[in-house]
Amino acid sequence: MSAAALITGQPGPAQRRAMAKAITLLESTRLDHREQADALLTELLPHAGRSLRLGISGVPGVGKSTFIEALGLFLIARGHRVAVLAVDPSSSVSGGSILGDKTRMERLSMDERAYIRPSPSSGTLGGVAEKTREALLVCEAAGYDIVIIETVGVGQSEIAVAGMTDMYCLLQLPNAGDDLQAIKKGVMELADLVLINKADLDRAAATRAQAQIASSLRLYGLHGHPEHAHHDKSIWHPQVMPLSALKADGIEAFWGQVERFREIQQANGRFAAKRQQQAQAWMWERIHAGLREQFSQAPAVRAILAETTAQVLRGTLAASTAARLLLHKFSGDEHHA
Amino acid sequence: MSAAALITGQPGPAQRRAMAKAITLLESTRLDHREQADALLTELLPHAGRSLRLGISGVPGVGKSTFIEALGLFLIARGHRVAVLAVDPSSSVSGGSILGDKTRMERLSMDERAYIRPSPSSGTLGGVAEKTREALLVCEAAGYDIVIIETVGVGQSEIAVAGMTDMYCLLQLPNAGDDLQAIKKGVMELADLVLINKADLDRAAATRAQAQIASSLRLYGLHGHPEHAHHDKSIWHPQVMPLSALKADGIEAFWGQVERFREIQQANGRFAAKRQQQAQAWMWERIHAGLREQFSQAPAVRAILAETTAQVLRGTLAASTAARLLLHKFSGDEHHA
Repeated sequence: MSAAALITGQPGPAQRRAMAKAITLLESTRLDHREQADALLTELLPHAGRSLRLGISGVPGVGKSTFIEALGLFLIARGHRVAVLAVDPSSSVSGGSILGDKTRMERLSMDERAYIRPSPSSGTLGGVAEKTREALLVCEAAGYDIVIIETVGVGQSEIAVAGMTDMYCLLQLPNAGDDLQAIKKGVMELADLVLINKADLDRAAATRAQAQIASSLRLYGLHGHPEHAHHDKSIWHPQVMPLSALKADGIEAFWGQVERFREIQQANGRFAAKRQQQAQAWMWERIHAGLREQFSQAPAVRAILAETTAQVLRGTLAASTAARLLLHKFSGDEHHA
Repeated sequence: MSAAALITGQPGPAQRRAMAKAITLLESTRLDHREQADALLTELLPHAGRSLRLGISGVPGVGKSTFIEALGLFLIARGHRVAVLAVDPSSSVSGGSILGDKTRMERLSMDERAYIRPSPSSGTLGGVAEKTREALLVCEAAGYDIVIIETVGVGQSEIAVAGMTDMYCLLQLPNAGDDLQAIKKGVMELADLVLINKADLDRAAATRAQAQIASSLRLYGLHGHPEHAHHDKSIWHPQVMPLSALKADGIEAFWGQVERFREIQQANGRFAAKRQQQAQAWMWERIHAGLREQFSQAPAVRAILAETTAQVLRGTLAASTAARLLLHKFSGDEHHA
């Protein structure tokens, strides 16, 4: 049987092995592997797209793994099949912090209705994000109907995850310092739902944080999206909910909000439109990254880049003149690929 | 006399005419003009770099023009020569809102020790910013020792201006709504100094705003730059100052802070280091913009871009596969320039 047939076939050990093999192939940087991977992706694509893609982000220590395990167990008990992926651009440095150690989700990882895959560990955020996006398509083609993508607040990884999921949720601790960090980095603005975890430890602080964050989210709504100002039931207003992942308290209420979000987005047409926008943005992001790579590797550019940069730093060549000079060399170099 | 000799020569009508002509040449998109402009820039560069580059940003209505006129008059009375430029990417749409009408700075514009030039009015923010950066070099070569670059809060223009100035100042009204907008957009974080204008209209509100903004700036400092937490006199701590531009009240205190900032930055080596970083970042920004343009104009790309995009939107081609396909066409196209 072909890889695509195994992946889109019956759940079981053969499917899991084919999925793991396919994702490994997608992560390979060898050119012949890349060609096989593209052919496989194109075969799988008609079977993909039928999951809910859920992004979960939060700083280390906020309780992401505990939350995802509790959520995953809740979902498989309700008949769902759950895949958990991660975007962790720091994992190549740290040796794989997110999901690298499957024992962090011990019960979920032992269940055959769940599929857990650590973050690809190589390269730039763009490269890591690309591989996770492709792994997501493999999981969907294998019939996983909920795909959770986890990320830690490193660099721009939250933006990458918000850009590949249908709903983006931010886990926060009941404490205001964090909150400002998220506002500052523009992460809060991405959130469709903010969860205040460990709310059982300090109810009063959690209630304060909830009110504060809700007020920030309303301001974003009012300023950024005038339509949010109206109480229109066909529009989603970002929510803030308290939760205790450790006690699995609040999981069902959370899932109720997720389903409500999906219904609203599907009814108003935003669900499909957002996926199209994401696919197009992703295509351009990869084109731009590829162009930068072609440029940096072009022999005519490499021959003068160091000296040209030095002239710019010494102040003997204007930066824009230097850019034009290098671009001219690049476009004149017929063998730059 | 050559254009460069006129520009770097004696102040007077001939110099002003040569400057205006040079800036017009720099703004031209004709290829032969561009080559002349690059040659002129390279000639002027050894004479440039000796000004203080001051960025002033703030939303419409905050009183930027009134402030810049008051500051400009204060500076020329103290023997400085002051150039005022602008980055306004909306000016091509609105017909030139910033500095388009010189009567907005009537007294300053009539003084021969001041040189005021409206924002280049064409194209993308990157293009507008590039032309302003080059005009800045012309003003410096002509001996203007203070160059003020104004911008309104449109798109990413504040980031562009912060990236071409030595010191970036944000004008705010004494009102908190604004403040959140600036935090949200990451503009506050760029500011070396925040000015609360129209402070005379409501002293109490101005004092509240000052305390609030100072507290946000301290948090940025603490989180983002651990070294700011120490009270080290060789490090600049972003300041917040009340001001009334209309009454020219607070201008001298403001200038005292600007001079203190410059001294600290020069003493700790940040002044020169920041300019080098800015020049290098600018070179890469222009290279990336140029690469995107070469790509979009390559015949092999144009031939399939629409259909490839449609396949991505229909879900029959993965976005990353589409990107690889287009990049392959681009690099295989020997005549893409």
